[in-house]
Amino acid sequence: MLLPAVCSLIYREDDLWVFLASALLTSTFGMVLEGITKVADRPEELERKDGFFIASMCWFTASIFGALPYIIYGALSNPVDAFFEAVAGFTTTGASVIKNVEVLPHGILFWRNFTQWLGGMGIILLGIAILPRLAVGGMQLMALEAPGPTTEKLTPRIAETAKKLWGIYLIFSLIEVFLLFIAGMPLFDSVIHMFSTMSTGGYSSKNLSIGAYGSPVIEVIVVFFMMIAGTNFALLYWVFRGNPVKLLKDTEFRFYVLLNAVSIILISLELWLKKYPSIFEALRFASFQVISISTTTGYATDNFDLWPSFSKWLLLILMFVGGCAGSTSGAIKNIRIIILFKKAHRELQRLIYPKAVLPIRVANRVVSEEVTSSIMSFFYLYILVFLIGTLLVMAEGVPLITAISACAATIGNVGPGLELVGPAMNYSGLSNLSKFVLSLLMLLGRLELFTILVLFIPAFWKK
Amino acid sequence: MLLPAVCSLIYREDDLWVFLASALLTSTFGMVLEGITKVADRPEELERKDGFFIASMCWFTASIFGALPYIIYGALSNPVDAFFEAVAGFTTTGASVIKNVEVLPHGILFWRNFTQWLGGMGIILLGIAILPRLAVGGMQLMALEAPGPTTEKLTPRIAETAKKLWGIYLIFSLIEVFLLFIAGMPLFDSVIHMFSTMSTGGYSSKNLSIGAYGSPVIEVIVVFFMMIAGTNFALLYWVFRGNPVKLLKDTEFRFYVLLNAVSIILISLELWLKKYPSIFEALRFASFQVISISTTTGYATDNFDLWPSFSKWLLLILMFVGGCAGSTSGAIKNIRIIILFKKAHRELQRLIYPKAVLPIRVANRVVSEEVTSSIMSFFYLYILVFLIGTLLVMAEGVPLITAISACAATIGNVGPGLELVGPAMNYSGLSNLSKFVLSLLMLLGRLELFTILVLFIPAFWKK
Repeated sequence: MLLPAVCSLIYREDDLWVFLASALLTSTFGMVLEGITKVADRPEELERKDGFFIASMCWFTASIFGALPYIIYGALSNPVDAFFEAVAGFTTTGASVIKNVEVLPHGILFWRNFTQWLGGMGIILLGIAILPRLAVGGMQLMALEAPGPTTEKLTPRIAETAKKLWGIYLIFSLIEVFLLFIAGMPLFDSVIHMFSTMSTGGYSSKNLSIGAYGSPVIEVIVVFFMMIAGTNFALLYWVFRGNPVKLLKDTEFRFYVLLNAVSIILISLELWLKKYPSIFEALRFASFQVISISTTTGYATDNFDLWPSFSKWLLLILMFVGGCAGSTSGAIKNIRIIILFKKAHRELQRLIYPKAVLPIRVANRVVSEEVTSSIMSFFYLYILVFLIGTLLVMAEGVPLITAISACAATIGNVGPGLELVGPAMNYSGLSNLSKFVLSLLMLLGRLELFTILVLFIPAFWKK
Repeated sequence: MLLPAVCSLIYREDDLWVFLASALLTSTFGMVLEGITKVADRPEELERKDGFFIASMCWFTASIFGALPYIIYGALSNPVDAFFEAVAGFTTTGASVIKNVEVLPHGILFWRNFTQWLGGMGIILLGIAILPRLAVGGMQLMALEAPGPTTEKLTPRIAETAKKLWGIYLIFSLIEVFLLFIAGMPLFDSVIHMFSTMSTGGYSSKNLSIGAYGSPVIEVIVVFFMMIAGTNFALLYWVFRGNPVKLLKDTEFRFYVLLNAVSIILISLELWLKKYPSIFEALRFASFQVISISTTTGYATDNFDLWPSFSKWLLLILMFVGGCAGSTSGAIKNIRIIILFKKAHRELQRLIYPKAVLPIRVANRVVSEEVTSSIMSFFYLYILVFLIGTLLVMAEGVPLITAISACAATIGNVGPGLELVGPAMNYSGLSNLSKFVLSLLMLLGRLELFTILVLFIPAFWKK
């Protein structure tokens, strides 16, 4: 919170005290909490249960305190709105309830996008070092690629892995700022758009998002870094260590590139036939939007809510797929889709050879039954939580497409949906209850469902 | 085809020759086919592969020849339309491309609904005696309840089980005709509506479906028999043998009743608050529609496309759930939903007790890993096939809600969807390609996906 305060100082704007007050409140709470927990007996090493609780509470409390600047400044007077905006920040969703971002001071805009960049840091670590250890939703698969010591103890391993992954994150961040700046974007805009690109967050300081710059060069840069942000950072680490083959041969990465390429071609074709006379224009808008949605960033260069139905629906499906595991993107993720498909194929083979042992392989490694089973349940729970969300939102009278796309875009940490929550609109028109439900969906999606859901089963609270 | 011919004779209508010609063509083809296959070497006992092939071809060829009367009479001059109508008959879907059914002669109307009743007979046998043996989509679970000899040989078992199950089907059919008739429905209408109730087909001789009679008594009767038709016929068999406890204690049956009850209450509430001033009217329309959709029948007493969004969406979700396994209803089915839920709950427990063995139980019996695994892949494939269907239909320019609901209503063997394919509309406005895609979805859904999909993997065709 002191960084946006510096921002307010530079631009000599009236939101300086907002960040100082927020920082004071937050650190006071933190110190009180530390005092309380010091009294209690604390074990040396963390248990599994602690891991789930800490990860869930981490995003929740960050969002509570992250909402303070919006409330204190008065940008969002309704606490539910401010919480929604902060959750959409830290979960790198990018769904917004602010009607006009262009009137906000630089400090608030910086804070808004900085929450996403911070969220992104947390997610990379969570996805590569923590959740695989906790065996959440088949993330065990990821443990194999993670850089860092192979010690059994969680704490030193996390610290070591964090240093390596965050180094990569920082390097790409600096390169993106530099490129955006020389492409003609103002420095401030470059920094905050880097925050929301690298984290696949999607917040912008412009009401028209990246479309406001109208620059194909900027779009190409943003597309490139969205693709990077949607890639497994453990593999990017190996690229920096001089081993790009690991990335290029990765099954998930290949599928990710292929799925995006096919989607771009199909949507370009429909846009060309039904909306834009020029194939290049169709290709330009389609490629930006496909990458933006499939990496769960949520930027827009065109109002895709006005696109024909096939394109809209394919984008909606991509909201469910998301990017690669170990990236900053959300949703189900490509590796799970691959394994679900392989598993289904194996079930069909088993009909013909009922007694054959047919293991599932990814990159010549056998995927254990535990992992596939966990992934299949993840898929089911993802659909179930999404459907419960849609029913709750619709019970408040929200129309079909709005509700479906809002839930898909929040549980998938994408941001904009269709119709009333489309790229030219925002989430401010929804009721408090709907905003709260969607905030929960963002948190559930971000923490790979299991991390939060496990807190709600009785076994968790048994000694 | 000779039965509708009798119908034409009774009503002295001009479609007599249509059925005679259709019967002649069909039996000629059958005899030629029999002649050809007699030449080839035929093994004594059927293999697994034969089972899949026969089941798939059975519904496909029945639909090809079942389309003849529509074409020859001229009710549907486009062969794709006629095929669609026949598929929707034999798969007991009830989706129609006929704009005005009330101008059709009795013979054609009889044939149209009779295909559903025949389809229903096939499905019960398939679901209880054949697919469990072939281990399709976790249907093995059903084998335990099936009446009949426990011989290892497939053929005598099927014959014996068929006799028992079809007996039950016939008894309920006769009772329904009787009740509908004394409730004031004309005899012909009673017979053909019985055909489409017991099979959860949903074809009607009225453009307004059951709503045309405006009789609460008829609606109650139809609701009761739709519920019966959505119940496991193996359990209904035990009820007739004096063991109703088996049904009442059945996990799936209880869940099925509960899910319908909760859905009726929720939809009644929304209709009462937003559409009908009287709670009784809301309850009447809601209960009929919920049962009609959740059993995948597809009758309507009100245009639910005009209902508020929560109600419409809940109906759409129920289209995916369907009735019980071993019934004539389609879609995913309650038992699979239950096992998916139990499995997901177990995955959450496993996060806390990573080494514990936690078997899934249904009615105190352990469900094998093979069965749960097959069910989870079934769920994934169901969603995947549905999504591919929607994309294909939308590529032709069909709007979002129409395409989504059309695919949900065909793969789930329901019938009517929303908007352009809503209960007051029909499927005639779609292109040939869309109709063909939807016909495939009906067949895929009806044959529990695996039965048809297995034909498309290379291993099936290897010696």
